[in-house]
Amino acid sequence: MLLMKFTALVTLAAVALTFVFSGKVGMMRRRYGVEAPAITGHIEFEKANRIHYNTIEQLVLFIPLLWLGSSVIGDVPAAGLGVVWLVGRLIYASGYQRGADKRGPGMIITMLASFGLFLAVVWGIIGELIA
Amino acid sequence: MLLMKFTALVTLAAVALTFVFSGKVGMMRRRYGVEAPAITGHIEFEKANRIHYNTIEQLVLFIPLLWLGSSVIGDVPAAGLGVVWLVGRLIYASGYQRGADKRGPGMIITMLASFGLFLAVVWGIIGELIA
Amino acid sequence: MLLMKFTALVTLAAVALTFVFSGKVGMMRRRYGVEAPAITGHIEFEKANRIHYNTIEQLVLFIPLLWLGSSVIGDVPAAGLGVVWLVGRLIYASGYQRGADKRGPGMIITMLASFGLFLAVVWGIIGELIA
Repeated sequence: MLLMKFTALVTLAAVALTFVFSGKVGMMRRRYGVEAPAITGHIEFEKANRIHYNTIEQLVLFIPLLWLGSSVIGDVPAAGLGVVWLVGRLIYASGYQRGADKRGPGMIITMLASFGLFLAVVWGIIGELIA
Repeated sequence: MLLMKFTALVTLAAVALTFVFSGKVGMMRRRYGVEAPAITGHIEFEKANRIHYNTIEQLVLFIPLLWLGSSVIGDVPAAGLGVVWLVGRLIYASGYQRGADKRGPGMIITMLASFGLFLAVVWGIIGELIA
Repeated sequence: MLLMKFTALVTLAAVALTFVFSGKVGMMRRRYGVEAPAITGHIEFEKANRIHYNTIEQLVLFIPLLWLGSSVIGDVPAAGLGVVWLVGRLIYASGYQRGADKRGPGMIITMLASFGLFLAVVWGIIGELIA
């Protein structure tokens, strides 16, 4: 297997978590009678939908940063930042579902993890350029 | 070329299919007079929009799984599951456009393909960990 | 560092730009009093939201094409097409925010860049198949 195993594990976890959030949207659809293709109609559905979509927004930034980052700082450090990202998403989702005003802390943790990976890649590129 | 060619081919097909779905959203916008930035206003537009967005939701899970999966089970088997994913998306789109209640079977096929790749990566990681 | 540095740089820029667009959505939310989880309520907010989402739609096609493309045509040519993509996104965003009818040119530039990468990968796969 060519890939870095802890980075792959975090990738799987991030994909699975996003999938779980999408499953919750479907569940909320049925529970509150929001018929597809509508994406509005009940506040609990809308919050679940925004949790899912915000996670996709973050995921599409995170996966490229994670994969590039792991080649700069190594498998375990990159995966460590990935775990921070996962924890941030869990805090975000549980906060947001309780109330839209409680979505801040999880969002900040998510962003810090991605920003750490971003800096790692910047570092790696600078290292390449001056090498 | 460093990449695995059938995995790359499936990636291209998945990207192209998602692009085709986005093109259909634009076409529906014009046909039913739904002016940007609105994303509601006519049921046929809304279904096309949901087909596109649901495909993006699935694509961001599928591509990482496909790429990781191909390094575990090889190019052709991973691409084979990718073809299942593509077929699932086509069935999903044609079903959903006929009626939101007909979106189930294509969705399940899509998910099974992604789940197969997921299990392949889990298998690969376990293999690495006990090696 | 295993990655191609200019491709990585363009990836960082694309991720950062998408993040900036998401930040603008949050700013517009506050400025025009569109309370989460609502995604409608003020035209300026809705345009910013659509710019962000359209960029995500494009990003999930672009990153796989960029990464595959760089392995076919090399780091610098692929990154060059990536710069075209970035410029297209900037033109798209500034056009769309001024008026939804001004979103065309930037969209076309974005698509041409992605299409160039797409053709590069097709070329690479054909080369592999007949080799």
